[in-house]
Amino acid sequence: MNEQGNKAAVKGHPRTGIKAIVFDLYGTLYDVHSVVQRCDAAYPGRGIDISTMWRQKQLEYTWLRSMMGQYISFEQATCDALVYTCNRLKLDLDETTSTVLCNAYLNLSPHPEVPAALQRLKDMGLPLAILSNGSVFSIDSVVKNSGLQEYFTQLLSVERIGVFKPDLRVYTLACEALGLAPHEILFVSSNAWDASGARYFGFDVCWVNRRDNTFDELGTAPSYVVRGLDEVPEIVSNT
Amino acid sequence: MNEQGNKAAVKGHPRTGIKAIVFDLYGTLYDVHSVVQRCDAAYPGRGIDISTMWRQKQLEYTWLRSMMGQYISFEQATCDALVYTCNRLKLDLDETTSTVLCNAYLNLSPHPEVPAALQRLKDMGLPLAILSNGSVFSIDSVVKNSGLQEYFTQLLSVERIGVFKPDLRVYTLACEALGLAPHEILFVSSNAWDASGARYFGFDVCWVNRRDNTFDELGTAPSYVVRGLDEVPEIVSNT
Repeated sequence: MNEQGNKAAVKGHPRTGIKAIVFDLYGTLYDVHSVVQRCDAAYPGRGIDISTMWRQKQLEYTWLRSMMGQYISFEQATCDALVYTCNRLKLDLDETTSTVLCNAYLNLSPHPEVPAALQRLKDMGLPLAILSNGSVFSIDSVVKNSGLQEYFTQLLSVERIGVFKPDLRVYTLACEALGLAPHEILFVSSNAWDASGARYFGFDVCWVNRRDNTFDELGTAPSYVVRGLDEVPEIVSNT
Repeated sequence: MNEQGNKAAVKGHPRTGIKAIVFDLYGTLYDVHSVVQRCDAAYPGRGIDISTMWRQKQLEYTWLRSMMGQYISFEQATCDALVYTCNRLKLDLDETTSTVLCNAYLNLSPHPEVPAALQRLKDMGLPLAILSNGSVFSIDSVVKNSGLQEYFTQLLSVERIGVFKPDLRVYTLACEALGLAPHEILFVSSNAWDASGARYFGFDVCWVNRRDNTFDELGTAPSYVVRGLDEVPEIVSNT
């Protein structure tokens, strides 16, 4: 599967119909593990353990809440996941620490290659958008706090429909906002479950595999696989 | 949350309206990690690593497939999760090994206290049923292979509606099959996400916490918490 994906990236000839690029936010543009340092400051030596379990539970809670029809904001899922993580790891979590750590998710760092890659894509004349599980407030905060707002024509949140990715209804939001058909959009995500949902929806999908991860076995494969966002301009260079 | 749950178990006075008990299968009645031995035989020393990641991915795939509207059988999700796990852990997986290990999920061992507890509950005159993510074939196989079929009046699979727990529609199946209202059913599960879904649906829920786990922060709490199935007769003793 992984190899197939990589082959697709190498062999795939540049797309000729891409009219916009839509990015996932958490993990794709921004490093969710940039919270490790703050976790380590609060709980010395436990930063990586906390960050790993926290992210896993954050995702699970978005999926499970969606399935149960019990939507809450991404911020709330993030805080709930932190509570679970600290309970599980037997760490005391006071209100101040909770606030400090949850706010760290509003101040994520972009992956190092991201700003230059966005600049190159913008220079190619393509509209760039974000479609994220985050709330409107979270997406705005993360993008503004990192100074990347100038690159995006649309910041799209699942908030309006009250269900998280990879529910396929979420991907419709991008088509509606951009006025484009699914096949005219290149969707870029580092999350295999998100890439799979987007593929089922009908987007061309570029999976960003920075850390030699394994693509999930969900019955579909990404159209392209790259090691970082700096490889995305190549994919769309001939459109 | 956990403490609240435990308090509920201790303080909760016996239910007076329970007319049937519905059990989750995987993890609740049967030990999903009873596959460790076979994993270890195929990949010496890696049994626990494989079993842990395999179970986690199996669950994720049921949730993600449900959200994407791409239902497959539980057996298929189980096999897909094994493929991912072996890819991720860089272990070769040939067809024979895959078949042997996936078949292990049809021959799970019940948790030690389960047969005696089911006998006691049956003696109390309550109909006992299973409501599981497994296919009809999987549920039948696991129950028959362990010789526990005499205890259950109904074996209910999600197969008919093509979506997995905790989608709330699944829990409806138990009400329909038993001809009972949600509040007349005690639902028993060791999976916190399943217990949460069942609680949102309206069942009284008993969470089986055998291994000092932490209940998930999904906005609801179990009605009762027990350390094993042998404590369930106490809950219903006065019905």
